[in-house]
Amino acid sequence: MSFNSFGHMFRFSTWGESHGPALGAVVDGCPPGILLSEADIQPFLDARRPGQSKYTTQRKEPDQVRILSGVFEGRTTGTPISLMIENVDQRSKDYSEVAKAYRPGHADYAYDRKYGFRDYRGGGRSSARETAARVAAGAIARKVIGEVEVHAWVAEIGGDAIDPSRFDPEQVLQNPFFCPDAEAARRWETLVDRARKDGSSLGAIIACQATGVPAGWGAPVYAKLDSEIATAMMTINATKGVEIGDGFAAARLRGEENADPMLPGDDGPEFGANHAGGTAGGISTGQPVFCRVAFKPTSSILTPVDTITRDGEATEIVTKGRHDPCVGIRGVPVVEAMMALVLADQKLMHRAQCGDDGGGPD
Amino acid sequence: MSFNSFGHMFRFSTWGESHGPALGAVVDGCPPGILLSEADIQPFLDARRPGQSKYTTQRKEPDQVRILSGVFEGRTTGTPISLMIENVDQRSKDYSEVAKAYRPGHADYAYDRKYGFRDYRGGGRSSARETAARVAAGAIARKVIGEVEVHAWVAEIGGDAIDPSRFDPEQVLQNPFFCPDAEAARRWETLVDRARKDGSSLGAIIACQATGVPAGWGAPVYAKLDSEIATAMMTINATKGVEIGDGFAAARLRGEENADPMLPGDDGPEFGANHAGGTAGGISTGQPVFCRVAFKPTSSILTPVDTITRDGEATEIVTKGRHDPCVGIRGVPVVEAMMALVLADQKLMHRAQCGDDGGGPD
Amino acid sequence: MSFNSFGHMFRFSTWGESHGPALGAVVDGCPPGILLSEADIQPFLDARRPGQSKYTTQRKEPDQVRILSGVFEGRTTGTPISLMIENVDQRSKDYSEVAKAYRPGHADYAYDRKYGFRDYRGGGRSSARETAARVAAGAIARKVIGEVEVHAWVAEIGGDAIDPSRFDPEQVLQNPFFCPDAEAARRWETLVDRARKDGSSLGAIIACQATGVPAGWGAPVYAKLDSEIATAMMTINATKGVEIGDGFAAARLRGEENADPMLPGDDGPEFGANHAGGTAGGISTGQPVFCRVAFKPTSSILTPVDTITRDGEATEIVTKGRHDPCVGIRGVPVVEAMMALVLADQKLMHRAQCGDDGGGPD
Amino acid sequence: MSFNSFGHMFRFSTWGESHGPALGAVVDGCPPGILLSEADIQPFLDARRPGQSKYTTQRKEPDQVRILSGVFEGRTTGTPISLMIENVDQRSKDYSEVAKAYRPGHADYAYDRKYGFRDYRGGGRSSARETAARVAAGAIARKVIGEVEVHAWVAEIGGDAIDPSRFDPEQVLQNPFFCPDAEAARRWETLVDRARKDGSSLGAIIACQATGVPAGWGAPVYAKLDSEIATAMMTINATKGVEIGDGFAAARLRGEENADPMLPGDDGPEFGANHAGGTAGGISTGQPVFCRVAFKPTSSILTPVDTITRDGEATEIVTKGRHDPCVGIRGVPVVEAMMALVLADQKLMHRAQCGDDGGGPD
Repeated sequence: MSFNSFGHMFRFSTWGESHGPALGAVVDGCPPGILLSEADIQPFLDARRPGQSKYTTQRKEPDQVRILSGVFEGRTTGTPISLMIENVDQRSKDYSEVAKAYRPGHADYAYDRKYGFRDYRGGGRSSARETAARVAAGAIARKVIGEVEVHAWVAEIGGDAIDPSRFDPEQVLQNPFFCPDAEAARRWETLVDRARKDGSSLGAIIACQATGVPAGWGAPVYAKLDSEIATAMMTINATKGVEIGDGFAAARLRGEENADPMLPGDDGPEFGANHAGGTAGGISTGQPVFCRVAFKPTSSILTPVDTITRDGEATEIVTKGRHDPCVGIRGVPVVEAMMALVLADQKLMHRAQCGDDGGGPD
Repeated sequence: MSFNSFGHMFRFSTWGESHGPALGAVVDGCPPGILLSEADIQPFLDARRPGQSKYTTQRKEPDQVRILSGVFEGRTTGTPISLMIENVDQRSKDYSEVAKAYRPGHADYAYDRKYGFRDYRGGGRSSARETAARVAAGAIARKVIGEVEVHAWVAEIGGDAIDPSRFDPEQVLQNPFFCPDAEAARRWETLVDRARKDGSSLGAIIACQATGVPAGWGAPVYAKLDSEIATAMMTINATKGVEIGDGFAAARLRGEENADPMLPGDDGPEFGANHAGGTAGGISTGQPVFCRVAFKPTSSILTPVDTITRDGEATEIVTKGRHDPCVGIRGVPVVEAMMALVLADQKLMHRAQCGDDGGGPD
Repeated sequence: MSFNSFGHMFRFSTWGESHGPALGAVVDGCPPGILLSEADIQPFLDARRPGQSKYTTQRKEPDQVRILSGVFEGRTTGTPISLMIENVDQRSKDYSEVAKAYRPGHADYAYDRKYGFRDYRGGGRSSARETAARVAAGAIARKVIGEVEVHAWVAEIGGDAIDPSRFDPEQVLQNPFFCPDAEAARRWETLVDRARKDGSSLGAIIACQATGVPAGWGAPVYAKLDSEIATAMMTINATKGVEIGDGFAAARLRGEENADPMLPGDDGPEFGANHAGGTAGGISTGQPVFCRVAFKPTSSILTPVDTITRDGEATEIVTKGRHDPCVGIRGVPVVEAMMALVLADQKLMHRAQCGDDGGGPD
Repeated sequence: MSFNSFGHMFRFSTWGESHGPALGAVVDGCPPGILLSEADIQPFLDARRPGQSKYTTQRKEPDQVRILSGVFEGRTTGTPISLMIENVDQRSKDYSEVAKAYRPGHADYAYDRKYGFRDYRGGGRSSARETAARVAAGAIARKVIGEVEVHAWVAEIGGDAIDPSRFDPEQVLQNPFFCPDAEAARRWETLVDRARKDGSSLGAIIACQATGVPAGWGAPVYAKLDSEIATAMMTINATKGVEIGDGFAAARLRGEENADPMLPGDDGPEFGANHAGGTAGGISTGQPVFCRVAFKPTSSILTPVDTITRDGEATEIVTKGRHDPCVGIRGVPVVEAMMALVLADQKLMHRAQCGDDGGGPD
């Protein structure tokens, strides 16, 4: 058991708070001999970086990653890879209000009840800044799963969904919303900007797909690929739901509608549909692995909300400061990282038990 | 890492296949001195037992549990509790078709690709019979969390949802659907029976609530109460999605709609709402912990589905035999068990780090 | 964390008490497709079985193992293998004395202080009967490590050591002491018999060697092959010390005496010595892996020893009943099992990280 | 499974190589609210620091620790504590020889066979510099176990043992050998200096005792206090053996000689002896916990040793550079740290299962 680690064989641990000197991750169990430098990691951090548009928090963090161990002459050595990102833009603001009163929807009250006190500066450990460490670790995971491609996008903001018929993967990096539907992206400009100006916030749904996952990753019962993805996604700040394949919609289908027929193919079977999202019995089938993740609206809003102080007195709170009007947007690189991290771990676990890299003992 | 274990400090491992001689669980880490006998476990197994109405599979299993270790003079000793349930009604049918061709939606193909072969009798390890072992372990978990009450119910079958205004907890055990809305239960009789007669199947959504959970259980990042519940639920056969609190619906709310205001109360704070489902920052707040779980329609149906044989030849398959027309129904005791198992584990982990049983270091 | 499990990827959990209905093990993570039946396990249990000579306890247990899951058509399926051994010869004796007073050197007092009470019948969970479950699991581990041969023997009883110049592996199964030196075995007959008649007991040292371990198993820091062997051996009842290679004697050598020179060989390097016991930096070198384990004399003796009752009153205790005059003797199959279990686990972990079975990425 | 982590509930992970920019540890699971600053850690690092006498390596490292997370306003927050120590004195020497040929007794060959290549600068991850991270983590562990005192000392160098009758704890920090016997310390000056001048090296035995450990820490089978200590000690570089209590000597005692009689005492029982080293059945008894650890002589010596190159050619090697003539000496703070780390972990695990801090459920 480790409260701040994730994974079994490809395992990473993160540390750091929003306003501490730095944050980081230690990646353990990485196979040796993989080409790795900061340049492999930085682009993913850059994609996650705040302050890149008016639709995200204005905190300016360069998020420059340093590799402190585990790499020699440009290759992983098989020993732990320590990654560090310095915090630069911790604004020395007045935290007396947050220290005194609980922000509803934030971890403030729960931390105080659990630990007796809390680092209230920027949310401390509960800040979404922790996800930078995951994104860095995820970049290494991508190298481990080689041929697998992982792509996420925002599928819905504030209830306004993309149109699947306009899905264009090229669009995702063309707009500040990681939106694959150019038209939806334009609508969201207005939507998110209005929320921002109102001091309100919006929720979002992110979709993620991994292609090239060989059949055989996962395990029947308590290490199901599905359950590993579910826990991975639900560790991300602000997530409230996760579904694999058709998910909740599958609960409204009949058995014959939900079937994924199999047909002979040139290179293994072909599937007539992918309602299951690429898994069966907890194990990958070779189809794309697909999940969706629900992000709640950012809890930090300018509308006053009833709350109490540490001493139990009634008060109201307004969360000023630099916040994302839709925290889900910046979740895209994090969701991708978590998917890559789960898959890297599953690959190594499959190897351990079955002696191959998946796809069947040919 | 253990593929067939769940939990960190209160940990259980299950074993057994659908058509083997028995199945069971080993519960490790249980506190000593707890009163425990088979009679504490059997009622939960009886609730899950198949063959109790025409709406579930007709396999008749007494599911009598035996405690083989870890209890002395009626109390847990702190050593592992071994639970065994014998399989009685493994019908000696002809499995040649299932052995040869893959049933879409089942684990057949994935197992073959992963392990090279599979125990095809009744689905082997992928059978929902494994959940009997969880339910038995869950009965022990309930004893560990003492004052916490865990209740689940079916909230929706085949897209037909209960009416919250007719919610009556007393109803849940009054009908074969674990349905808290008597009127919905009546509609479901027709709905499920028709699916059964059609050889079709229906999905379902189960809701689960735990009351009496003290503030403080869970941990900030990779042992969030949310992520532990998510993984627990997604290890159950046929689940495709999980949400905490408002879940996916929260992604469509604005920040001010989704806030759970706090007010001073006589005994700790009172909350104006529970959109969050009882957690904040991954830690329980003292509010009821609430989740919903999506079950896909049973994959075993009488409609022929295209598939392939082990040799890659095209064929069609019809899954005869004894099956649940809506596997979600029998998921209710399993969802309750998993919730109890997560909470017991979280209680012990909280104790380890914080030295109390939760609710704050008073 | 699991108190009653061992191993990371090839992991087993044991359960059961001396006087409960049965004891057993669940082996998780076993590779699929391995030929396995009870007949592969029984011979190792038979070697460990009590009551086979006057030099061991007279408890008569057939120790018949049953495989309850994880094997189909004679092969492991990759799912958990549940092993059960029924207890048959729990003599219905009077335990009132043991229940009331603490036997020095036994777990009685520690259990009471930890758990508040204990199953005092035959030592409950602290009985060496638990090792039957390990031996059964170890037989499966041997199959996983295929080409590796594991052999243990008694090297010393009551301070009387074997003469290395008379070491003959054939002898080990020719005498009731697992002694490779026929002359020492004869001396031990007198030595152990006298201790038995005196109501006294003797300690022993067991040596264990694994040949055929490829270079590369283990890991640099906290999963060293050395530390995994050390913990494995120290979990066996009555063990008080473990050493790898020359062990404590190495602490009395100078650097040049302790060096294991390397020379070019036909098939990899040849080593001029094996002071290190087959590991360097925590990783196997391809040389035989060698360790020694110290067993204390059985604590159950007929000489009265001062002790206290549960109520803290002074008393004397004499441990009557069926006991081993030298518990170390029957440790041989257990030490072998633990070595095999460690190596199987290391093999799978090496596979996970490095993608081969050891011996170098050729 | 994590190759570079240790502990279950109080868990630390280390990272870093001898010649990388830094090394460090992440401590996870630490209870909240503990007073902690760098000043609590530094003295232990200073005790371990190299270059303090001519009897240890001349590498000069300030070993200044920085706390990067997990502490707020002088107290632990319950979130991970990241510790970093920069490497300063990595001498830019010529490593071409070490890169090419294997140093017997070092990890060189094993790493190459496992990972395919290695960071050969100063031994990379296999360098004893890693132990600085443990010592830092150990300082935090000491705070967790509060009342427990942990003391280690060198009991023997090169076969020359201290005289127990001259044991004086005050002496340990009065000489460069952590020797409690002033006379032995004087003999060791000559002994170690001669070995140093000869380019040879000596082994050592370290003893460690923890007093104030309450009864009840540990667990019956695979989390025995004994086995946890054994694995902890055997993860330290250059260790080859570990024993609890009388250890190997117990194997030469008779049952009645090895008994630890119990007598009524004012505050719990009193024990007539402590052959067992403070544990029974894997659980602490309240007596001092005692172990001894064997360190081999440093493998780096000036005597030429036969070896092979990476290409399998015969050659000789002489290990120049800055080395400890007796690496065991500097093991004292490391052994103490590991003992403290094991005990902190056991305390939290005991809490989890039994709900108290040990000493019995009074």
